[in-house]
Amino acid sequence: MERIMTTKTTSPPVKAIGLENVIALESEICFIDGQKGILIYRGYAIQDLAQHTSFEEVAHLLWYGKLPKRQELDTLVERLRAERQLPEEVIDILRNTPAGVHPMAALRTAVSALAHHDKEADDNSKEANYRKAIRLTAKLPGLVAMFDRLRKGKPVVYPRGEGSTAREFLYMLNGEEPGEMAERTLDIALILHAEHGLNASTFTGRVIASTLSDMYSAVTGAMGALKGPLHGGANMEVMRTLLEIDQKGLDPAEYVRQKLARKERVMGFGHRVYKTFDPRAAILRDMLKKLSEEKGEMKWYEYQEKMMEVMEKEKGLYPNVDFFSAPVYYLLGIDIDLYTPIFAMARMTGWTAHVMEQYKHNRLIRPRAEYVGPRGLKVEPLERRK
Amino acid sequence: MERIMTTKTTSPPVKAIGLENVIALESEICFIDGQKGILIYRGYAIQDLAQHTSFEEVAHLLWYGKLPKRQELDTLVERLRAERQLPEEVIDILRNTPAGVHPMAALRTAVSALAHHDKEADDNSKEANYRKAIRLTAKLPGLVAMFDRLRKGKPVVYPRGEGSTAREFLYMLNGEEPGEMAERTLDIALILHAEHGLNASTFTGRVIASTLSDMYSAVTGAMGALKGPLHGGANMEVMRTLLEIDQKGLDPAEYVRQKLARKERVMGFGHRVYKTFDPRAAILRDMLKKLSEEKGEMKWYEYQEKMMEVMEKEKGLYPNVDFFSAPVYYLLGIDIDLYTPIFAMARMTGWTAHVMEQYKHNRLIRPRAEYVGPRGLKVEPLERRK
Repeated sequence: MERIMTTKTTSPPVKAIGLENVIALESEICFIDGQKGILIYRGYAIQDLAQHTSFEEVAHLLWYGKLPKRQELDTLVERLRAERQLPEEVIDILRNTPAGVHPMAALRTAVSALAHHDKEADDNSKEANYRKAIRLTAKLPGLVAMFDRLRKGKPVVYPRGEGSTAREFLYMLNGEEPGEMAERTLDIALILHAEHGLNASTFTGRVIASTLSDMYSAVTGAMGALKGPLHGGANMEVMRTLLEIDQKGLDPAEYVRQKLARKERVMGFGHRVYKTFDPRAAILRDMLKKLSEEKGEMKWYEYQEKMMEVMEKEKGLYPNVDFFSAPVYYLLGIDIDLYTPIFAMARMTGWTAHVMEQYKHNRLIRPRAEYVGPRGLKVEPLERRK
Repeated sequence: MERIMTTKTTSPPVKAIGLENVIALESEICFIDGQKGILIYRGYAIQDLAQHTSFEEVAHLLWYGKLPKRQELDTLVERLRAERQLPEEVIDILRNTPAGVHPMAALRTAVSALAHHDKEADDNSKEANYRKAIRLTAKLPGLVAMFDRLRKGKPVVYPRGEGSTAREFLYMLNGEEPGEMAERTLDIALILHAEHGLNASTFTGRVIASTLSDMYSAVTGAMGALKGPLHGGANMEVMRTLLEIDQKGLDPAEYVRQKLARKERVMGFGHRVYKTFDPRAAILRDMLKKLSEEKGEMKWYEYQEKMMEVMEKEKGLYPNVDFFSAPVYYLLGIDIDLYTPIFAMARMTGWTAHVMEQYKHNRLIRPRAEYVGPRGLKVEPLERRK
């Protein structure tokens, strides 16, 4: 066990810019050992979950603290299917969004607007919050798919209330039944992205929830945080890099070496938490290999293997989850700027689980700033100011 | 100077639930001494600013770090006036919001949607962010006023591009020119609420900005945090208490004593930061007295004086800013559930100043959670789970 120092209100304040080494709360949801590359959701290793469960089972695990029995899973799946319907007013907001708007901006607005059509939006009871977590998780995939179809001038495809989250999303996105490989690949990607401790978006959600604001406010804030290039936006950058290498016919190893020589950042490597191979990245790397073989398109996999080798040798840095999710989604035919929205579809389960945990043992999250500005100034009359 | 302990990445983690005694960042914007009841914006005492400046001067101070000269103030005021126009699509979102939706929920959506109509939404340059801070501060009052008129079935009143923020807001809200007393009262209330260090909504905005997400994402999250009853929602509760006392003909002192006897919370007292009289509360108390005299309606002031006396004697607790802003807004004829939106109109300046400061010296804000859940579980096949 690592040594932990506990501060008291009466202790001198602790200064920790970025809060990197500070424990802000206790949680039963997620354990990460960045040194050993371990990721656990409520006691279960991510590898075990990715291999033996579905996204819906993981959602149940995150929300209720245990994997579902058959009957519980059937009930949850039915409720998710029933909740996929979207208010026409919210679809209209997407319809009226000007071309070129960032998908995460449009979806942030749409998620916020879902609250207007939920009679329980401001009911902060435990039961209502479980229902809202299901609702939000059920509705976001349709919003993502509809956003994409509307901007392409295609008619929206309404949910059928069938199948898994992954299957229904791909159906609403493409207007046709996905293959089994595509469905299971996306299902696993959703499991891998469902939860990751106090990342910036989840932390945002918990800070908002700590004012006893409602779940929609919390996840709307989380959507905004995930939009950031240092958070959910990274996998888009990875894919742009891969496309640049491909289109210009560059040598991937040489590309990385030149980037490093210019002291530029190579996207998809290193992580605030993991100092070794991110276990999610390892799973996605295997999936990418299989998917590439199935599609008969090995180039992205090969580029990445070469890039990894250089990064490990030159910088001791390992690829993160964003590095491999990018070409996986690309091979599934998904537009690059939808990668972050798909991340959000998965993380909605983790966000809502954390928001409910925050309510359970609430304490306002309010750190301090150290004031380093001027003191003792006096307001001069307007005409005499310099 | 107080003693501060600085942690390093290599130190053992520090545990501080709620982050109460943790310094998360350095800031030049706001200094608060909760023991002495001191509040300073960029070097100037809040009393000095409330007495000698306008909300627009304070906005300039918060954003640019200095009070404006005449020419600078004229420029800023002109730009604020020019930016008050609202996109019809965003007004339509308010128009299509069902009756009974929480004002802060509707406004959270509207603020998020403003981004769709700002070509600079994703331009994170310093110059674009100054322009966006002005835009957001200019547009929110119109959204608040229009939300209120639309829900009452009244035609919206468009901004004229004249006068101060306070004057134009009251004009758009009521459809008529406000009196001088009302304008100046609201102007001071906006100054007092403009900024307050790392409160939960500002901290939310900075966490979001620390992912390098855009300013609209940050302030949309902040709106959601301010909605919480432990944050911006408190002044509504204060007014409901005063109305209950009035309608039931209760003795205010006795009301407080009974609440305390039942160990219930009396809204509007105590503060996470202030352990003495909140300086903003002192200013608002004076304003309330003057406004009450002007309106010939002393009862709220008198109820509150009696409540204060009991709370100080019995609990050693002082009133906070929410305690007095409530009856002040009530006397201005503003609906109770608009008090938090008005708080947001003021705090938009502080939020945007903090977001810009975060970008200037960015470091991802990501604390840790201490895992206290189960370990070492193995996924059982679905049919065998218990």
